[in-house]
Amino acid sequence: MQTTSVKAFGTTAPEADLAPLSINRRAVQPNDVEIEILYCGVCHSDLHTARNDWGGSIYPAVPGHEIVGKITAVGSAVSKFKVGDLAGVGCIVDSCKTCSSCQQDLEQYCLNGFTGTYNGQDLQLGGQTFGGYSEKVVVKEDFVLAVPANLDLAAVAPLLCAGITTWSPLKHWNVKEGSKVAVIGLGGLGHMAIKLAKGLGADVTLFSRTPDKTEDAKALGADHVVISTDEAQMKAVRGQFDVIIDTVPYVHDVNPYVATLNINGTLVLVGYLGGLEPILNTVPMILGRKSVAGSVIGGIAETQEMLDFCGEKGIVSEIEIIKMQEINTAYERMLKSDVRYRFVIDMASLKNS
Amino acid sequence: MQTTSVKAFGTTAPEADLAPLSINRRAVQPNDVEIEILYCGVCHSDLHTARNDWGGSIYPAVPGHEIVGKITAVGSAVSKFKVGDLAGVGCIVDSCKTCSSCQQDLEQYCLNGFTGTYNGQDLQLGGQTFGGYSEKVVVKEDFVLAVPANLDLAAVAPLLCAGITTWSPLKHWNVKEGSKVAVIGLGGLGHMAIKLAKGLGADVTLFSRTPDKTEDAKALGADHVVISTDEAQMKAVRGQFDVIIDTVPYVHDVNPYVATLNINGTLVLVGYLGGLEPILNTVPMILGRKSVAGSVIGGIAETQEMLDFCGEKGIVSEIEIIKMQEINTAYERMLKSDVRYRFVIDMASLKNS
Repeated sequence: MQTTSVKAFGTTAPEADLAPLSINRRAVQPNDVEIEILYCGVCHSDLHTARNDWGGSIYPAVPGHEIVGKITAVGSAVSKFKVGDLAGVGCIVDSCKTCSSCQQDLEQYCLNGFTGTYNGQDLQLGGQTFGGYSEKVVVKEDFVLAVPANLDLAAVAPLLCAGITTWSPLKHWNVKEGSKVAVIGLGGLGHMAIKLAKGLGADVTLFSRTPDKTEDAKALGADHVVISTDEAQMKAVRGQFDVIIDTVPYVHDVNPYVATLNINGTLVLVGYLGGLEPILNTVPMILGRKSVAGSVIGGIAETQEMLDFCGEKGIVSEIEIIKMQEINTAYERMLKSDVRYRFVIDMASLKNS
Repeated sequence: MQTTSVKAFGTTAPEADLAPLSINRRAVQPNDVEIEILYCGVCHSDLHTARNDWGGSIYPAVPGHEIVGKITAVGSAVSKFKVGDLAGVGCIVDSCKTCSSCQQDLEQYCLNGFTGTYNGQDLQLGGQTFGGYSEKVVVKEDFVLAVPANLDLAAVAPLLCAGITTWSPLKHWNVKEGSKVAVIGLGGLGHMAIKLAKGLGADVTLFSRTPDKTEDAKALGADHVVISTDEAQMKAVRGQFDVIIDTVPYVHDVNPYVATLNINGTLVLVGYLGGLEPILNTVPMILGRKSVAGSVIGGIAETQEMLDFCGEKGIVSEIEIIKMQEINTAYERMLKSDVRYRFVIDMASLKNS
C-alpha cells in the first residue's frame, strides 16, 4: 500500500521526551477520509502510553485521540464527507463491525477489540497506529465524526474523548431533565460531565475534596458543591443521586459515595482501572437496589449524537492552547493537575517546526 | 387495643431452642385482615434472627415470613378480601406509604424503614412483631397477598420470600424471552430463581461448585450447569450472561462471575450482606459496561404480580413439609444445606400441640 510521510511528535522509549519524528500515513482508500489535523487534545492516556505506565506501549509512540481538523481528501466510496468539511476522530479508528456489540453501535465494546487511534494494531499498514500529534491522519469514513461549525474548533477536540466518556454513561443511565447527578473529581472528564449533565437538564453536584474548586465548578454549571472530606456535608446528601459519574483516576473508597445514591441509583466508574479498595460493602447496595458499574468512551453514533448536542447547546471544553513543542512541559503540569481543564495542541506549531 | 392470645413457636434467647409460647394478636381493625396460618416456609433469616446472628434480635422471637392461610375475619373497611379467601403474607407488614419509595410501590426500600413481619417494631401494640410460626396473624389489607387457588398451598409459602427475592431483580433487570440468565447457588433462593427465570422465557444456567446438583438443576428447569471450579467451563461462558442472580449467602469472589457477564450485563447480589472480598476488579466492568448491584425482596404489588404469574405458569417451590415441633432439627439441617429446597411447616401441627 502506498504511503505518505508526515511530520509527527512522539517518543521512542518510556523515559524519553516527546520529539519530532516522521510517520507514514496510508494513501486514501475508497472508504477513507484524509484529515489535516488542526487541533489535538491532550488526554491522560497519551501520557500513560508515552511512558508505558500501563505496559504494552509500542515505540515509536505517537499519542493523540482528540483530533479535529479539515478534510483534505476523500476516497471514491465516501458519501458522508467532502473535502473542506470539519471533521473529528476520537479513540477508535476501526472495529470488526460484525460482533453483537458493533451491531448495536457499541464499537467501544467490540468483542474482537476495537483499533485504538494510537498504539493499536494497524490492519492496513501493519505495525502500530499513530495518533493525532501529527499533520494528517487517514481514517475510515465510518469512524470519522462531523463537527458542528458553530463551536470553537480547538475546544471541540476534548469532546472526542473526555466528552464522550462522560456523555455515554449519562445517556445509558437515562439522565434527563430533573435527574440528580453527581460528579466526582473536577479534571478533564469531570468538567465535561458537569457541562453535559447540566445540558441534559440535570441538577448537578460536584464532589470535591477541597473547597478551592467551588467557584470554578459553579461557573461550569454545577448547582451544588459537596466537600467529600466533610462528614456533615456527606451526610446531608445521603440517598440523593440517581447517577454518580466517578472520574477519579486512582484507587479511592467508593463506599461513602454509594451512600449518597438514591434507591435504584448507579455509580459509574469511568476513570479508575483496578481493584476497589477499601472493599465494597454490599449492604447499602442490597438494601437500596444500588449499582456500581463501569463505562468506557462511547460508540461512533453516540459520539456524533454528543457532538450534535454540543452544537445545539453551545457546549465545548475549557482549554489551554499549547504548541506541539510544549507537550513535555504540559505532561508534567498534568501530573500536578495544573490544567483547567484540558490542554489542546495547536497543530500549526508542528507544521511550522 | 384489644388482643387475643394465640399459640406460637419461638425462642427466648439466642442459644435456646424454639419452643411453644403464647403471643398476642391485635383485634381486627377496620383495615385489617385476620389469617389462620396453614403453612409457613422456613427462611434462613428465621434461623439468623432466632440465634441473633446479625445482632438486633428482640426476644421472645417468633420467626416466619412465608405465610399462607385462610382469611378468618376482615375489618369493616377491607375491600379486596373476604372471609374464606386464601391469603399470603411475606416479609413486610407495614411501611410509611408516603416516602418516594412507597409511592413507587417499592415498600422494600421504604425510606422510613418498613415493618418486618417479625422482629419489627409493632406500631399498634408496641414491642416487636411476631411472625408466622403461630396460629393466626392480623395484617393490614395493603400488605396481604391474594394466593392463586390452583397451586399447592404449602408450596406457595416460599414464594413470599424466596420467590419475590429472585423475581424482583429478574423483572427490574428486564429478563424476558431469550434473555441469558445465570444463577449462582442452588438453595431456597437459587431454585426459585431458576424456575422464575425459566418461566419468563430465559435461557438459564446454574453455576455450581460441584457436579452433584446437575440433575436436580435440570429437573428444575436449568438449560445448562457450569461447574464454577472448572476453569475451562468458566472460560467457555465468558461474556455470556445478561443477568446473574447471585444467591450465595457468604463472602465469595464475584470476579470470575463478572467475567461471564455480557456487555451491559448485571450481577445482582441477593444473598450476601457484607464486604466484597477478594476486591472487585473494575477493569472488566469498565471495558464491558458491566454492573454489580444488590436487591432485597420486593414490593407488595410486585409480589402479587409474581404470585399471579406463578398461578398462570404453575410455578411453586420444591418443599419438604415438617411439623412445628421439628423446627430445631430443620435449622440444623439447613446449616448443612440438607434441604431440597425449602422446609415448610404444616401449622396444623402447632394447633394440635
